[in-house]
Amino acid sequence: MSSTFGRLFQITTFGESHGGGVGVLIDGMPPGFHVEAADIQRELDRRRPGQSAITTQRQESDAVEIVSGVFEGVTLGTPILMLVRNTDQRSKDYDTLKDVFRPGHADYTYFEKYGVRDHRGGGRSSGRETVGRVAAGALARVALATVGVRIVGGTVQVGDLRTETRDWSQTEKNLIRCPDAEAAERFIALIERTRDAKDSIGGVIEVVAQGVPVGWGDPTMSKLDAMLGAAMLSIPATKGVEIGGGFGMCALNGSQTNDVFDGESYQSNFSGGIAGGITNGNEVVVRVAVRPATSIGKPQLMARKEGGTETVAIEGRHDPCICPRVVPVAEAMLAVTLMDAWLHQRALRGGVK
Amino acid sequence: MSSTFGRLFQITTFGESHGGGVGVLIDGMPPGFHVEAADIQRELDRRRPGQSAITTQRQESDAVEIVSGVFEGVTLGTPILMLVRNTDQRSKDYDTLKDVFRPGHADYTYFEKYGVRDHRGGGRSSGRETVGRVAAGALARVALATVGVRIVGGTVQVGDLRTETRDWSQTEKNLIRCPDAEAAERFIALIERTRDAKDSIGGVIEVVAQGVPVGWGDPTMSKLDAMLGAAMLSIPATKGVEIGGGFGMCALNGSQTNDVFDGESYQSNFSGGIAGGITNGNEVVVRVAVRPATSIGKPQLMARKEGGTETVAIEGRHDPCICPRVVPVAEAMLAVTLMDAWLHQRALRGGVK
Amino acid sequence: MSSTFGRLFQITTFGESHGGGVGVLIDGMPPGFHVEAADIQRELDRRRPGQSAITTQRQESDAVEIVSGVFEGVTLGTPILMLVRNTDQRSKDYDTLKDVFRPGHADYTYFEKYGVRDHRGGGRSSGRETVGRVAAGALARVALATVGVRIVGGTVQVGDLRTETRDWSQTEKNLIRCPDAEAAERFIALIERTRDAKDSIGGVIEVVAQGVPVGWGDPTMSKLDAMLGAAMLSIPATKGVEIGGGFGMCALNGSQTNDVFDGESYQSNFSGGIAGGITNGNEVVVRVAVRPATSIGKPQLMARKEGGTETVAIEGRHDPCICPRVVPVAEAMLAVTLMDAWLHQRALRGGVK
Amino acid sequence: MSSTFGRLFQITTFGESHGGGVGVLIDGMPPGFHVEAADIQRELDRRRPGQSAITTQRQESDAVEIVSGVFEGVTLGTPILMLVRNTDQRSKDYDTLKDVFRPGHADYTYFEKYGVRDHRGGGRSSGRETVGRVAAGALARVALATVGVRIVGGTVQVGDLRTETRDWSQTEKNLIRCPDAEAAERFIALIERTRDAKDSIGGVIEVVAQGVPVGWGDPTMSKLDAMLGAAMLSIPATKGVEIGGGFGMCALNGSQTNDVFDGESYQSNFSGGIAGGITNGNEVVVRVAVRPATSIGKPQLMARKEGGTETVAIEGRHDPCICPRVVPVAEAMLAVTLMDAWLHQRALRGGVK
Repeated sequence: MSSTFGRLFQITTFGESHGGGVGVLIDGMPPGFHVEAADIQRELDRRRPGQSAITTQRQESDAVEIVSGVFEGVTLGTPILMLVRNTDQRSKDYDTLKDVFRPGHADYTYFEKYGVRDHRGGGRSSGRETVGRVAAGALARVALATVGVRIVGGTVQVGDLRTETRDWSQTEKNLIRCPDAEAAERFIALIERTRDAKDSIGGVIEVVAQGVPVGWGDPTMSKLDAMLGAAMLSIPATKGVEIGGGFGMCALNGSQTNDVFDGESYQSNFSGGIAGGITNGNEVVVRVAVRPATSIGKPQLMARKEGGTETVAIEGRHDPCICPRVVPVAEAMLAVTLMDAWLHQRALRGGVK
Repeated sequence: MSSTFGRLFQITTFGESHGGGVGVLIDGMPPGFHVEAADIQRELDRRRPGQSAITTQRQESDAVEIVSGVFEGVTLGTPILMLVRNTDQRSKDYDTLKDVFRPGHADYTYFEKYGVRDHRGGGRSSGRETVGRVAAGALARVALATVGVRIVGGTVQVGDLRTETRDWSQTEKNLIRCPDAEAAERFIALIERTRDAKDSIGGVIEVVAQGVPVGWGDPTMSKLDAMLGAAMLSIPATKGVEIGGGFGMCALNGSQTNDVFDGESYQSNFSGGIAGGITNGNEVVVRVAVRPATSIGKPQLMARKEGGTETVAIEGRHDPCICPRVVPVAEAMLAVTLMDAWLHQRALRGGVK
Repeated sequence: MSSTFGRLFQITTFGESHGGGVGVLIDGMPPGFHVEAADIQRELDRRRPGQSAITTQRQESDAVEIVSGVFEGVTLGTPILMLVRNTDQRSKDYDTLKDVFRPGHADYTYFEKYGVRDHRGGGRSSGRETVGRVAAGALARVALATVGVRIVGGTVQVGDLRTETRDWSQTEKNLIRCPDAEAAERFIALIERTRDAKDSIGGVIEVVAQGVPVGWGDPTMSKLDAMLGAAMLSIPATKGVEIGGGFGMCALNGSQTNDVFDGESYQSNFSGGIAGGITNGNEVVVRVAVRPATSIGKPQLMARKEGGTETVAIEGRHDPCICPRVVPVAEAMLAVTLMDAWLHQRALRGGVK
Repeated sequence: MSSTFGRLFQITTFGESHGGGVGVLIDGMPPGFHVEAADIQRELDRRRPGQSAITTQRQESDAVEIVSGVFEGVTLGTPILMLVRNTDQRSKDYDTLKDVFRPGHADYTYFEKYGVRDHRGGGRSSGRETVGRVAAGALARVALATVGVRIVGGTVQVGDLRTETRDWSQTEKNLIRCPDAEAAERFIALIERTRDAKDSIGGVIEVVAQGVPVGWGDPTMSKLDAMLGAAMLSIPATKGVEIGGGFGMCALNGSQTNDVFDGESYQSNFSGGIAGGITNGNEVVVRVAVRPATSIGKPQLMARKEGGTETVAIEGRHDPCICPRVVPVAEAMLAVTLMDAWLHQRALRGGVK
């Protein structure tokens, strides 16, 4: 239950960063959708470490195997297991961390929660857990595309640099996945300076769903906003989420933020495509606050497991800014959330014989 | 399922704003806790309409009846039904709205989702649904208090006015529930101007849990951050949530935001009391973006149900700024979320005979 | 969670037999179905105590109030609360039972489980909890009828007396709800002798769903057989359930029990309408073993709460054979289970835009 | 959701009989339990095909890999993936079945439900799906053993031959897993005659949990009886389940079946160790009706997918009586169900800090 997201399109990720592999089990995928391993692999390649000079140099091919639930390229309606083996693990990089709790990391909380801990690379709290999310999202995208839903996303802020431009055709053309080619260069320069200082920096990413029909989501506890809030804040290193106008609306008046609707189109999108928890036909717009990565090369004061403190520099291969790698994860979680909402609406109104 | 929050401490709200009543059914409350109707009523009175000059003038006594699950002031471990009857409904105020879709409201999305609609006051999408949440939260608070957890909250921004002061003893002493007596006056003056202009204004509220043990929450899909994200964004009129440093951390470096821990206390709280999805012993800090109320007296362009548009002024009794009334709701959802996390930790580690 | 049945059509019952009332909250009822309180009341009247000389003489009118989720006779798609107040409680009948654990009853297990106990009439373990089930089932029947599903049921065994006749038009014409008028007389005579001996007797009831489409149910953990197994064995006093041929098939060969199907109809129904967990178009047939009621007037040896034993005769108004009152409950649980399976099939295959 | 069993100890099986493999993902296993692959393998070997002359001759080594959730022989509290590769598949045996629906099988219902079908050996409706259940059960047994719970089981009826003897030390010493060495010989002789006639035969198995504490289970929808009913009837080829006295109690009086309890021990066990849905300290006793296997070598009339009928003899390697192979599966499901009930009781009463 604790590693599961979704109620009808139910995804459960598994795997430690230094164990036998990572992946996802999906229960609830409807039958009859065409999907190939290549559809999944393409998204995994976007999340994969070692892509560029501004991401971690850990090398993982992250090759996916679809173990079950797909037969001759068609979903069977049965559970789909997707498995990715771990390869480049270098567990010994973590030996110096065995006896300390890294600041900002889950080391201490994990140890107190479970009483045991796999110290090699964070275990389940590693970013590697998101492999399964991206695989599940790739599957959801395939299904959503059949009803015209398309998902895009990118990095819109790094440090105190922002952009208001949204040219989604640009995001795969620059290392930071920014929807603004010019801003991308500034973002990257800042990240390089940060990396050279053995530090990390935060940012904001935005994910958008286009073509979503009216009527997905629920009015109270399962508002689509709420499901998206859970989806996004379940991604490692995220500490904030906003829909549409978000925090920026707080300083405005209702007469400004009530999206005027003439029965066909909207004059604005402060609601982020969701009114009363239910999609309104406008683009679904979600922004996520990504904290500076907690793994940094700079020496830091750490609590020792046996008491006392120690100053340690964390060896290993870190991301100075994880935004470009969070983009495909957040897109995946948006896809998964919409898939679940779609199936709910089918249950509520669908016309099976 | 869609009106349910929580997995072990499971609350399901029910009731339309103009039907037979509203309330909550709680499945999963452990036995043996002492609770009186007065514990519930006290919190409901904080949420109730008609409290002051800056809230809606709808008069509801919101008297709660505990129908089941409590015997002689002690929880039985069985489902607890709490029921509040509707009294001051004035459904005819809504007659002019029968044939139009109010901008920003759920009228249109609701109609498209369900095909039917109770036009009297929003039905389930009314703020009145939160009565049940507050009742459930009051129960959770009673239980949490037995392990030393205390919940506070207040309004920390209205429009573009903010405060950094957090004197929680002040919140019940001013109409806007601000933890800063001086800022409260400025906030209230702005709200009064807004009300006189027949408009509404947004704000930010902050809720904090003190005394939470280390180890509550989960590392992946059910991160405590994620559960809080869902909890807060399921509250009507919220469009953003952040934990600890939130969006403000994006502009900082990891060397600044990694909360240094010496084994006993933290030098900062950018994590908002949650590291890797699990409580770390620090205060749990959550901020929520509250949009300007969508119900305003100003004339607005609305789409007609039968096609075309119309300019309508919404009659009725509205809140110019709903922040002071969202505070007890957000506190309740924080309590409910922690209660659920607590029970999960008991299942995982608890030492039953 | 523990008082909830169903995943998409989710019913949660509440209420103690001697508290403020009993009932059910239904989350997941689709919108647009026509339902009146009378549809619910008719079924509750079939379950109600005090119907005849062979049932308990406790007098409860069991008048239902639909508090939420229905507006002008149409379901809104929102949670439906149905509440029945307790009236004829006579709690003092139970005073002598305060300090002993009745054999076969849940008194001891309840006390050990919860540490607290409402000794007045069994609390949640009272048969009165089934009021909520019957109300939920009545709602499900209304919806199922729109797709041609009809549910019938009756008592087919009392003590060692059985019938193979299934004339469902007879069941409401005799006190024991037997689908065989002649057998009914023998059943009733046996029950009267048992009642006069201050004892109780068991029996078997059968419930049948006619007109169920092919394709409802799931192939593994959520086989329709499994869901029905849970549904039936969650009814108080049931200790066995069988589908179609059930235990009787164990002595036969596959060449006898494989229901030959020519593409249109079946030559037999050993599968009870369910093959591989999924409906096959034949009648769904379920039989339930109802144990002799544990409340009997005969003196019995009981363990004392404070240690030692005592011989006590249980005062109060008991059912010598609860089969006729379990029939509407089992029918209700069959309806609820099918409703849930229907909604799942809609989610899996349903063609909403 | 449809392939998931359990609420806190949540197991989801996956895999088609002729795909990349089968197995189980377990979410909710508490940390700190010692478990080796050998603990799992031992149980899988009991379920494995090709064990003896009276089971199918399909040869599968069923070697398990624990992919995640266990580190250095200790459970981490994270999801545990256990994977078994398929090896001896002989898919071409099934080619003649591509265009017909086998009687009693899920072929027709599956095709109608999903619109697609993996015709090679039943896909998910194959008995091979139970590999995952047995692996999960083995894990649950390891944990339950630490609190003194032990699970045994065996075949107590084949065709019309029965035994009342329960010498559990005998079950692994004979091919049919009968707790009565003498009856085992008669059972086996009957099965051999049935096999030679290219037919199959049913039977009854009994599984028992010893040493279960008082207080596990719930009083209403989640009665332990109900959970066990779902658990058992989710096993392929089962069509009935009874707890304790079961159907046999129906012919008795309450004065006979009320298990007299003196505060320490019971004089009988008609309740099967469960009173009011909650364990009472006595042995938990469950019997399961296993239908004759639907795969038989005798020619049978089958409906053709394209219309019309055809007489076909099913080639392949079948079990004439699947009871001995259902025994470890039913034991596993009993273990899984108790594990879930245990964790619930910990959540309800457990005393974590």
